[in-house]
Amino acid sequence: MHAVYPGSFDPFTNGHLDLTLRATRLFGRVTIAVLRNSTKGDGLFSIDERVEIVKAATTQLKNVQVEAFSGLLADYMRRKKARIIVKGLRAVSDYEYELQMAHLNRNLNPEVETLFIMSSARWSYVSSTMVKEIARYGGDVSKLVPQATQRALDQKRHGPGDQAFFG
Amino acid sequence: MHAVYPGSFDPFTNGHLDLTLRATRLFGRVTIAVLRNSTKGDGLFSIDERVEIVKAATTQLKNVQVEAFSGLLADYMRRKKARIIVKGLRAVSDYEYELQMAHLNRNLNPEVETLFIMSSARWSYVSSTMVKEIARYGGDVSKLVPQATQRALDQKRHGPGDQAFFG
Amino acid sequence: MHAVYPGSFDPFTNGHLDLTLRATRLFGRVTIAVLRNSTKGDGLFSIDERVEIVKAATTQLKNVQVEAFSGLLADYMRRKKARIIVKGLRAVSDYEYELQMAHLNRNLNPEVETLFIMSSARWSYVSSTMVKEIARYGGDVSKLVPQATQRALDQKRHGPGDQAFFG
Amino acid sequence: MHAVYPGSFDPFTNGHLDLTLRATRLFGRVTIAVLRNSTKGDGLFSIDERVEIVKAATTQLKNVQVEAFSGLLADYMRRKKARIIVKGLRAVSDYEYELQMAHLNRNLNPEVETLFIMSSARWSYVSSTMVKEIARYGGDVSKLVPQATQRALDQKRHGPGDQAFFG
Amino acid sequence: MHAVYPGSFDPFTNGHLDLTLRATRLFGRVTIAVLRNSTKGDGLFSIDERVEIVKAATTQLKNVQVEAFSGLLADYMRRKKARIIVKGLRAVSDYEYELQMAHLNRNLNPEVETLFIMSSARWSYVSSTMVKEIARYGGDVSKLVPQATQRALDQKRHGPGDQAFFG
Amino acid sequence: MHAVYPGSFDPFTNGHLDLTLRATRLFGRVTIAVLRNSTKGDGLFSIDERVEIVKAATTQLKNVQVEAFSGLLADYMRRKKARIIVKGLRAVSDYEYELQMAHLNRNLNPEVETLFIMSSARWSYVSSTMVKEIARYGGDVSKLVPQATQRALDQKRHGPGDQAFFG
Repeated sequence: MHAVYPGSFDPFTNGHLDLTLRATRLFGRVTIAVLRNSTKGDGLFSIDERVEIVKAATTQLKNVQVEAFSGLLADYMRRKKARIIVKGLRAVSDYEYELQMAHLNRNLNPEVETLFIMSSARWSYVSSTMVKEIARYGGDVSKLVPQATQRALDQKRHGPGDQAFFG
Repeated sequence: MHAVYPGSFDPFTNGHLDLTLRATRLFGRVTIAVLRNSTKGDGLFSIDERVEIVKAATTQLKNVQVEAFSGLLADYMRRKKARIIVKGLRAVSDYEYELQMAHLNRNLNPEVETLFIMSSARWSYVSSTMVKEIARYGGDVSKLVPQATQRALDQKRHGPGDQAFFG
Repeated sequence: MHAVYPGSFDPFTNGHLDLTLRATRLFGRVTIAVLRNSTKGDGLFSIDERVEIVKAATTQLKNVQVEAFSGLLADYMRRKKARIIVKGLRAVSDYEYELQMAHLNRNLNPEVETLFIMSSARWSYVSSTMVKEIARYGGDVSKLVPQATQRALDQKRHGPGDQAFFG
Repeated sequence: MHAVYPGSFDPFTNGHLDLTLRATRLFGRVTIAVLRNSTKGDGLFSIDERVEIVKAATTQLKNVQVEAFSGLLADYMRRKKARIIVKGLRAVSDYEYELQMAHLNRNLNPEVETLFIMSSARWSYVSSTMVKEIARYGGDVSKLVPQATQRALDQKRHGPGDQAFFG
Repeated sequence: MHAVYPGSFDPFTNGHLDLTLRATRLFGRVTIAVLRNSTKGDGLFSIDERVEIVKAATTQLKNVQVEAFSGLLADYMRRKKARIIVKGLRAVSDYEYELQMAHLNRNLNPEVETLFIMSSARWSYVSSTMVKEIARYGGDVSKLVPQATQRALDQKRHGPGDQAFFG
Repeated sequence: MHAVYPGSFDPFTNGHLDLTLRATRLFGRVTIAVLRNSTKGDGLFSIDERVEIVKAATTQLKNVQVEAFSGLLADYMRRKKARIIVKGLRAVSDYEYELQMAHLNRNLNPEVETLFIMSSARWSYVSSTMVKEIARYGGDVSKLVPQATQRALDQKRHGPGDQAFFG
């Protein structure tokens, strides 16, 4: 079966990697779909950079594909002929939002079902937003993200153009 | 009795309409008060457009009035000599925020009481934000909003000036 | 308009009294309906005792009636020809349960609407269960309950037959 | 893939049936496992009666099996060589409890993953406890449960031995 | 400073031990107060057994005392001349209940403050109730409880008198 | 013991003052650390203004210090050689976020423990955001904030340069 794991992944964390691993053990094929969100403004990494990081972090997982998508997830699922959306569950606010999204996606595409997998307790407090906040101030995120993400954060930091972000 | 149903209504959804209908069955007079929110930035529709949409969607309800307001709700209630605020309840995050607002409004105007009505289970996952997101990408929201809102979304889409929004 | 405020009221607390006061300011007639719950086992006070306490605590409120009821609330509302159920809202667990009950009552009797009123912040942590627990161990609940409840608790304590409870 | 849907099912509701249908569309084989819970005391229906009701309600679903189990779910999954537990998600209190159970089952049997499926909004307020409470007082639950459950409730009601329950 | 860590501890888990360790690093003296709860019915272990288990599990922590108490916590704090209650925080339902208790204790004894410490993510899903449920069915709880608790559970299991529990 | 109470304090409310008072009764030394948040954009008051307001509001509390900080809290705690972070707890959404932050801070600096104190029920609905919103529209916040904050809001209002904010 083909499951799609959608998200912003800005950047990909150990929590995301843990969920990907769990999904690959259950489904024959897992597509990590990186959302090109036109309304949220720019993230830290561009869509292309995010796709590269996720690919590098999941390179050893044979049944994982990574690609960018834009538009409605319900339409993307139709194009992909996929019927399973996989999402991680952590906190209550997540939960409410994710239930709302799942209901809407069911309304927009009744063929599709969202399956929620519990994040590992170990990573339950790690979010992309927090990782960015810590990295911004030079804190150590090496225990929170895969090496591929760590490397990309280091490059951003020392390369040109993101000096403003890493104030 | 005169009840005020305040909100942004950007745009008015089937959930809002359901709540309005329930309110009209309980209270002699219901004013839908469209909030002119100076801090949130521009919405999809202007205040005037929203008022027009809500009027069109509720035209058959005899005891409903629609108007815009700005400033504090507690002051608006005083000017209107109304004592009942009606609000819909859905998810937990809503709930916390709405309780906080209700406490504050009670503090600012002890004459006023906020009454919460449960949204219909059927519309519990529909929000203006989600409707806008779906419409932005050309998704079908006809099952989620009244015809008046649908028409206004279509006009926005094909008219001049909002091309950027409907990327 | 006629509103029904249902509950176990074992015993009636300051939070219940606060809600009753708020309801009487909004509705022409308020019936406090004390639930005879056959499945929950015996409470501290019998249904008759509870009705007496609530009557004593609300004696100065002209538009308040107190009575016992058993069976389904939806049927009781039909018999009473009342269309408004009033409930207090406090914590999240309350909230979830109350929403479920309100949906069910709407399903069983579509004429009926449940209106939720926010409890005063001051009494938000007071529950009948806590009051019983404190009274059981001789703690002071005089700031948490009306005088009528306080007197009834004192009588229970020193009268015959409830020695086991007040171990 | 083989998914197990565990629960008390006392009795089986439309919400349970909706979830079963969704599961059968995703997984090749679904086992509804009726929990013989020694600590919770007797339910309304015996384990054997519950299994019969669930079988009758799902008779047209070809890839569904129904059986009773006792002991730990993690051990049951091992005996069945099944790796997927399916659970429905509704309210927040559910959610917290279900996450706790899923973590524990993962701890007791790391091969097993719990997948959460969102209940249909339409049945989100229906629970076995509520159904029993309504049936107890002669309320109409025909819109909340499958016909098989309705018939079993009617028989209980008019048969010998449960007069006490249906007081 | 003297902090009191109250609870049922039936039985003492790794989560409780983790919290105790954190408390000893912050406060000069920590008293683990095992609650003799007359209303909840018998637990798995008697109060004396629980005190023994907690003592054995914390024997290497120099500034920890263990004792039983009954009655109101607010009164116990007065007798002990202690002003800090320490509690662990995990799930939302916990949270609501604990906030309610903390408010009540503040009302009953304004000298006392409740400080909440976050449980380690690692033990966030472990509760005494779950440990008892697993042990009852012969599951392995060795990763969830200290050795002292494990030994006591084994003795219960193979000793006389609790055969009914360990059905 | 030295406790740090971090926050934005834009502006300092009665809820913040209540928490500060509670902290000073428990800890020998309390530092109120005003966060210089480079990412959130400008607040109503500058960091220096906030520090001045908090100093004025807490001038009579002998063991309180006020200072600004930027960067990661975990690093600030190291520089200060402080091990206790004090935070207030109110609503559920707060709670989830605060637990996440506390886990992260524990990860970044294992020496540090976050202790949560319950806000007074009386101020549980007061937030800086709400205070700003009310003040913006000329509402009365004198019951929600200390005099020092009230004075600063009045000056902002009538002084040059913030006319835009107080539209």
